[in-house]
Formats: sequence, structure tokens, C-alpha cells
Amino acid sequence: MTHQDELKQLVGKAAVQFVEDGMTVGLGTGTTVKFMVDALGQRVNQEHLSIVGVPTSDRTREQANSLGIPTKGVDEVDHIDLTIDGADEINNTFQGIKGGGAAHLWEKIVAINSDKNMWIVDSSKMVDELGAFPLPLEVIPYGSQQLLKRLEAKGYQPEFRMKDNQRVTTDSNNYVIDLHLGQIVDPHKLALELDQMTGIVEHGLFLDMVNTVIVGRENGPEIIHAR
Amino acid sequence: MTHQDELKQLVGKAAVQFVEDGMTVGLGTGTTVKFMVDALGQRVNQEHLSIVGVPTSDRTREQANSLGIPTKGVDEVDHIDLTIDGADEINNTFQGIKGGGAAHLWEKIVAINSDKNMWIVDSSKMVDELGAFPLPLEVIPYGSQQLLKRLEAKGYQPEFRMKDNQRVTTDSNNYVIDLHLGQIVDPHKLALELDQMTGIVEHGLFLDMVNTVIVGRENGPEIIHAR
Repeated sequence: MTHQDELKQLVGKAAVQFVEDGMTVGLGTGTTVKFMVDALGQRVNQEHLSIVGVPTSDRTREQANSLGIPTKGVDEVDHIDLTIDGADEINNTFQGIKGGGAAHLWEKIVAINSDKNMWIVDSSKMVDELGAFPLPLEVIPYGSQQLLKRLEAKGYQPEFRMKDNQRVTTDSNNYVIDLHLGQIVDPHKLALELDQMTGIVEHGLFLDMVNTVIVGRENGPEIIHAR
Repeated sequence: MTHQDELKQLVGKAAVQFVEDGMTVGLGTGTTVKFMVDALGQRVNQEHLSIVGVPTSDRTREQANSLGIPTKGVDEVDHIDLTIDGADEINNTFQGIKGGGAAHLWEKIVAINSDKNMWIVDSSKMVDELGAFPLPLEVIPYGSQQLLKRLEAKGYQPEFRMKDNQRVTTDSNNYVIDLHLGQIVDPHKLALELDQMTGIVEHGLFLDMVNTVIVGRENGPEIIHAR
């Protein structure tokens, strides 16, 4: 295991200490989350915790089930007590960008249905200002070429996300457009503008949403109560 | 032909007088639009107009092609000069509700990419206040049960649109939720609220969008320059 992975493993272990018996827990997607799900499986088996996981991807669902963590879909549960997910960037007021894995729509749907949200990240994700990481948009394929032109005209440097010369499609069969903004001076203003644009299903700005951030630091996981 | 159909036919004929040679014309969907496309086909054949249609549904595309009107997709054209579509309700400031045919997402995408928009309706669609017609929302299936609960909590009386005991799916494979609001006091405020709700792809409020309305009146089509 690399040193970086060891730090992520420590973060995962720290995160699952917040899970209590009887909870419904949203399970994100990503490399740090993978270590967290491993640690959660360990607690479930050792402490016989009775919990239900709500995964945000097939990958996480399979991992959870293989570890004996029962899972349900977001529409099959009453509520979600706590969701633990990764993030691609978190600024100093704990606003975030997610969607590097093209799953930010489902992740946001799980997040807004959760009483509490926790993000677990390595220290490289903590930034002063958002925007060095390209902002992902999930967009309706119909009319997306016109939408790209409109975003270009705004100077947002949009680009369809590609894989193997094909446009990436999401779990909801939409495309992803990444905005290469460099910096996002006012995330709330940008979010409102993107919310109102027809053809954009959801953007990757996760604002005023996270309650706890756990950062993998050299001297151990740093637990930050954001709001 | 019923008297109502005769009035719609007159509206259709009046609408296509706004089409000029060389134009790219957005073609909506609906019963009045059907008469308009017939009248457009007649003009194309008699006057040898060179136009391109951008249909908002497979149904309209098939009708247009059968009449010799060439069509292209919204992403295959540079721009759209004029879109002629129907509406489910138009209030006295020419704000509208569309989506009775579950096609408002694609209709709105065509509309926002059009230089001018014209709505053609029978007189029953002209109302003082919007909201007697249920407001359609196109929603992402994932998490839609939670979204319904959230809309219920707001008092918006949401209901999944059903057909043959199945949830209706749109051309983009999403669900439709109709809000039974009764009256919409402030359409802009409601639009902004719905724009910001995760899981709603697009609502059926078409605001500040229509330039010309043609209404089928007993004494002939009324042409209104809205904005």
C-alpha cells in the first residue's frame, strides 16, 4: 500500500466512527470512499451494526454487498442519516466541486436527501478558491451542441468529456460538459446561472451542503466541522 | 371537419404567412400545430420555398417529411429563425405553460435556440392567471420518489403522470410530475425555485419567451404581438 493510500485508509476509518447502529448511510464513490466502505464493512461485521447503505454507484453497491452491508436505493428509504462521499475540490468556506467521476447528479440527489453530509478527501483537494478543477455539468444530449456554443459565448471554455473518442454518458444517459474556468470567484452566482440554463440537468457545485470534512494529513486525519 | 378544427386550420394558415423563403423553422407538436404543418407543406410545394424544419417530436418530423418539408435536428442547424408551437395556457402578460404532451424539455430547447417564437392556440388556452392547467415537470427517475415527497411538503400537489398504469416517460427517458397548483401567482418566482431543485430537469413554465401569439377566434385568427 502506498503512503497516499495509508493516509486515505486512516481517513476512511475516521469517517466510519460517525456511523451509529440503526443508521441509513449514503455511500459515495471514489478512491477514498473505497477505503471507507472497507472500514464500514469491518465495523458492521465486528460490532454487528444494523445499518443500510444507499450507494451512489453500482461499483459502491457491489463493494458494500460483498462486505455484507445491505443496500437500498434512494427511493426505497425513508430518509438518509449521513452520507459519506468524496469531493474533487473544497474551498476555505467548504463549498465543493464534485463530478470528476461523472456521478455528481446521483451524488447530489443522495446528498440533498441526507440529514448530514460528510466529505472525505486527501489534502490535495483543499483549495483556497474553486475552479482549477474543471466544473462538470450533466447535460441533456438533445441540443447539447447548441448549449456548448452558448457556454463558449460566455467564456466558460466548455468541453464534452470524452472516453475512447466517444462522449461519456452518465448513469442517467446524459452527457458531461466540463467548464475549464480556472477560478470561480462567486460559486453561488455561477450556480444560480447554471441552474437556470435549459439543458443542464445538474452542475457539480455542491454549496452549503457539507457538515463535516475529513482531510488526510501527514499527522493523521483532520476532522473539520464545516457547518 | 369540426368547427373547432376549422378555427385551428385558419390559425395554422395565418401562422405560416410569417415563414419566409430560406428560413429555418422550429416545428412544435400538437393539434393546432398539425394544421400549421399541413399549411406549411402547401406553401413549400406551391411557392417552392426553400426552408428547413426543426421538429420537436418524431410525430411532427414524420408529418413534415411526408409533406416534402426537409428537417434537421436542433444540433445540426446554425440557428432557428422562427419556431411555431402550441401552448397549454397563456396568461394576459403572455407567460405560458407547456408540457401537456410531455415534450416541454425538447420544446424549450428548440425555443431558446430560436430568434423568434410564435404560439398558436385555440381561445380556450388564453387565461387571466396560469395554474388551472397542471404544471408539468420533467424529472430524473433516480430519486423521483423523494422529489415527489419534497414537492408534496411544499403543498404543490404533485402527481406522477401515468398511462396504462405506467409512469409516462419522455423522449429523454425521464418521468413527468404534474403540479396541481390551481393558480400560479408569481410565475417567475416559482420558475426560479423549480430551476434550483435537484432532480427537476425542466419545468413547463415558458416565461418572457413568446413574441407572437395567434388565437383562434370565432371571427378569425387574432394575431397578437406579445413582445
